[in-house]
Parts: sequence; C-alpha cells; structure tokens
Amino acid sequence: MRRIAVLCGGVGAARFLSGLVHVVDPSGVTAIVNVADDDEFHGLHVSPDIDTVLYTLAGVVDETQGWGRRDETFHAQEELARFGEDSWFRLGDRDLATHIHRTRLLRSGASLTDVVEGMRTALGLRVRILPASDEPQRTMVRTADGWIAFQDYFVKRRTADEVRELRFEPAAAPTIHARSAIDDADVVVIAPSNPFVSIGPILALAGMRDALAAARAKVVAVSPIVGGAAIKGPAAAMLGALGHEVSALGVARIYADVAGAFVLDEQDRDLAPAVEALGLRARTAATIMRDAASRSALARAVIDAASE
Amino acid sequence: MRRIAVLCGGVGAARFLSGLVHVVDPSGVTAIVNVADDDEFHGLHVSPDIDTVLYTLAGVVDETQGWGRRDETFHAQEELARFGEDSWFRLGDRDLATHIHRTRLLRSGASLTDVVEGMRTALGLRVRILPASDEPQRTMVRTADGWIAFQDYFVKRRTADEVRELRFEPAAAPTIHARSAIDDADVVVIAPSNPFVSIGPILALAGMRDALAAARAKVVAVSPIVGGAAIKGPAAAMLGALGHEVSALGVARIYADVAGAFVLDEQDRDLAPAVEALGLRARTAATIMRDAASRSALARAVIDAASE
Repeated sequence: MRRIAVLCGGVGAARFLSGLVHVVDPSGVTAIVNVADDDEFHGLHVSPDIDTVLYTLAGVVDETQGWGRRDETFHAQEELARFGEDSWFRLGDRDLATHIHRTRLLRSGASLTDVVEGMRTALGLRVRILPASDEPQRTMVRTADGWIAFQDYFVKRRTADEVRELRFEPAAAPTIHARSAIDDADVVVIAPSNPFVSIGPILALAGMRDALAAARAKVVAVSPIVGGAAIKGPAAAMLGALGHEVSALGVARIYADVAGAFVLDEQDRDLAPAVEALGLRARTAATIMRDAASRSALARAVIDAASE
Repeated sequence: MRRIAVLCGGVGAARFLSGLVHVVDPSGVTAIVNVADDDEFHGLHVSPDIDTVLYTLAGVVDETQGWGRRDETFHAQEELARFGEDSWFRLGDRDLATHIHRTRLLRSGASLTDVVEGMRTALGLRVRILPASDEPQRTMVRTADGWIAFQDYFVKRRTADEVRELRFEPAAAPTIHARSAIDDADVVVIAPSNPFVSIGPILALAGMRDALAAARAKVVAVSPIVGGAAIKGPAAAMLGALGHEVSALGVARIYADVAGAFVLDEQDRDLAPAVEALGLRARTAATIMRDAASRSALARAVIDAASE
C-alpha cells in the first residue's frame, strides 16, 4: 500500500482527495489539513477546511458551493440573529451539529486531532484526516484598514480588500501525527489549494518547510492557478498583490524549495520549461475537477508525476 | 400599576402568564422561574422552564406539547446523534439557537439573569423574566435505582420511576432581583406548577420560604391538581408517592405556611372548606387553561382572590 500524505486547504483539496480515494487504497491516504482559518462563531469552534474535507469525502457536501452541508436549513442562525448574534458567517443546522460536538469535546479536553478522528470514524471514512496543528495558529491579513482576522477578510468582507501581507500567529507546531505522516509517506502531495492562506500556514508550522525541503524528491505540488486565474477563491489576486507572477509559474516558484515535481494544467503547457528551469519536474494534466471522472484522472496524473 | 410576582415552573406557569398579560399591565408582572431543572446537553446550557416561559409569551411555542418551538426541525440533532451524542433530550434547530446564545454569554461571564434579560428584550416581551437563582441549583430524584438527575427522571426515563425523595443541590440563594421582586410585589402568585419540582426548588432557595411566609397575606397559590389528577406531568403521582393526599387539598397543605389564598378548580369546590380550615382563603375558578379566554379568566380570578 502506497502511503500518500496530502497537504490540504478546503474545497480544491477536498475535491482532489475525493478523486484520489478512487485510484489508490484510501487507507494509505492521510490528509493534513490547514487549521489557520479556524475561528469561533456563536461560541462554537468552526474548522472550515477540515469540515469541507470531511463533508466532501462523506458525500454530504453541498457540491454547488463546495462547502457546507447539502439539503441544509438555517433555522438556528435565523434565531441567533434575532438574539443579536452576527450571522455573516453562514452556519446551517446540520453543519452546526459538527461545531457543537467539536466544541463540547475541545472544552472537555480533547485535542482537535482526537475530535476529527472521532468524526471521520462516525462518518465511515477510511482516509486519515489530521489537523496540521492542534495549536491555535490563525491567519491574519493586512489590508488598507490594518490587520484583520482571516474570516473577516474572506467571508465578512468577501475578499474585497487588497492583501498587503499575511502572518500566522501565534507561531505553532505541527502535531506529531502530521509530522510523522510526512516522514512516513511515499508521496507527499501539495493539493491545488491557495498557496498563501491554505498551504502557507501548514508550511509555516515549526520545522515543516525544512522537513519537506529535505524530502522534496517525493513531494509533488498541483497548481491551483489555470490560465492565470484561480479555479476558486482569491489565489490569483493574492499572487499579484503580494508581488508574484499571476500564473502557475508564480506558484511553482513558491514551491520550488519544497517540491520535486509540479503538475500544471494542460492549457499552461507553455510554462512547463520555465517550471523545469526551477529544478522541478513539470507535468501537465487536466486540473479542473468538474466531475468524478476528472477528479480521478487528476489524482492518477499526480501520483504518476510523483512516481517518475 | 399593580406589581405582580409569579413563581413559575414551565408549561402551566407559562400558560397562566399568557393569560395574566391580558388582564393586567405586563410591565408590572415579574416571572420568577425555576432553574433547578436546567441541565447541559451537547455542552450547551438548557433552561427548560425559562425557555417555555419565553417562547409562550413570545407566541412561538409549540402549543400542542406546551414547550419547544413551533414549526421546528431537528436537523442538528440528527447529525449530533451520528457523532454519538445522546439525543433523548430533544432539541430542535430553532430551540438550539437559544442554548447556543445562552451558553456563549454564560461562558463569557454573564449571569443567567443577564442572559434572560437580553432574550426577553430581543423577543419584545414586557414581562420581566427572572431566573429564581443564578447559582447551579439542581433537582435530584431518589428512585428505586438511587439518586438520578431530574432530566434523567423526567425525560430520559419518562417519569416512570416512583419518586421516593427529592433534594436540591447545592444549596443556593435567590438572585437579589428575584428576592426584591417578591418584597416589592403587591401580589405574589404561586402558578399552577408542580409543587415539588417546579415551585419546591424556588421555595428551597435561601430565605425564600421565610420571606413568603412573612408576606403570606399577599400570596395566592393556584392548584395544579384538578379532580385528583395533574393537568400535566407527574404532580399527582409525586403527591401520592411522597405521602400527601392526591388532591387540591394535598397541595393546599404544602402551601399553607406561605400562601394566604388558594385557588382550586370549580370541580373541587367540596374541598374548599377543608382548605379554609388550613387558614387559607379558598376561591374556586375554572383552572384548566384550554384557550386564551380561559387563561385570561383564570388570571382575573387569581388576581381577584389576592385582592380580597
């Protein structure tokens, strides 16, 4: 059984994983998921990226938006708004159960890792899902208005601000489980997630970038940028605002020290020589995951790229 | 404006209050509500009697069952059950908002009194609603299986156990607000609630029984027992099991030291002389609150009984 560790953000990573489990033994797959966009709403601990991975793999995600539960209702939040609670972060009734359960366990002393392990078991998932850290690492975004919390930038202000700087605080360490999953893996995949706010916080965890750099021969990154645009979210705008080339090549430069191979979309094949010039093996594939077949095909291409 | 304080349990008291607000100025009414059946479910603080009063006065209660929200869904709890959380205490999605909001505020340092004041304001209610205590007073029930928590007896085991003894622990004090509402009231009503597990815990609060005894001339109690049966719940079974006569007279004996007047149902008029013999003014009324008109009529009769 091939052991595959996947560094994950939310929607893009979850879709990649949902293809991967069809082409390899899911028991060998470990998702190491960003926690820096976790936040508290209504006093409940919300882990957006972990939940997107859980819901997607369990087949209960709202496929249209890519996150949240399908067949969802919002009765609790309607009432919370009546009591004056902020409701700009939309939480459905089924989704709330996840946050209520997680918060109860965290308050009783469980680690986030423990909580997620219980949830993936309850949902019948074979993929191991690990928070990258059990510490409260949080993404902060500097805008023209100063430093704001990630969800304020991402959801409340709808990514309308130009991002001038990012930081992850406090400094945090990966869990021992996440760290050893990388050491033990035959292949490490950097999923097609936002390099700055999904993968960035994972790489910023103590020792993580060095560990990947030392093992870069087994690391393959997948570009979340196709034809100069992000498949979803603010990745392209962030590349430009933070001084990077807005292309798959710009992403490849960010990962050049930690990855040995780079998968970019077929429509970006012109960029492959420049990626190779960075010292990365460049491979092209259809990276837009429209359906189950394209997800599986991408997963196969990524595993092949890692194995060459 | 007449100041009326009402000692309250759940459904019976809430229905009484919903009539009272139609016959007196609601701004003069203070509900002092039992908290000894509060409990924690899914890590959330649930106050069943307070919520029944809030929901009933706000017109959003499920009238058929007398508690909970009408037009309710149970999506969150279905998912909580999937995560292995107990679901014998049914909490709907709209209802959960109350518990989520309350729990967040309590954890941030607010008192239960503060929380309820915010809620009744948000719901547009003019009646003042006060938890009898802000301390964690809890009803414990001794059954053939030993001491169990009140909600285990009441909901989980569906009041099937014979009640051998009750205690309220730890010893608790009324809030300063509840205490002064009684001192300041022109009339104190003991609502038609369970004398043992709704009114009993309020009377057990430090100094409460003595304060009422000293003011008994202005206190009127309403029998929750009609024709030897409880209108709702286990009051009749408890009367018998705890060695009392199962009748309105049995209830009158329990309240004889703290009330000056006693309202019993017209069908129990034969018991009036025996109630008077206890030193209570006995008044009869139609005490079964089938609809808005009968609720108002009972409220009027109770206020009249207090004013004689």
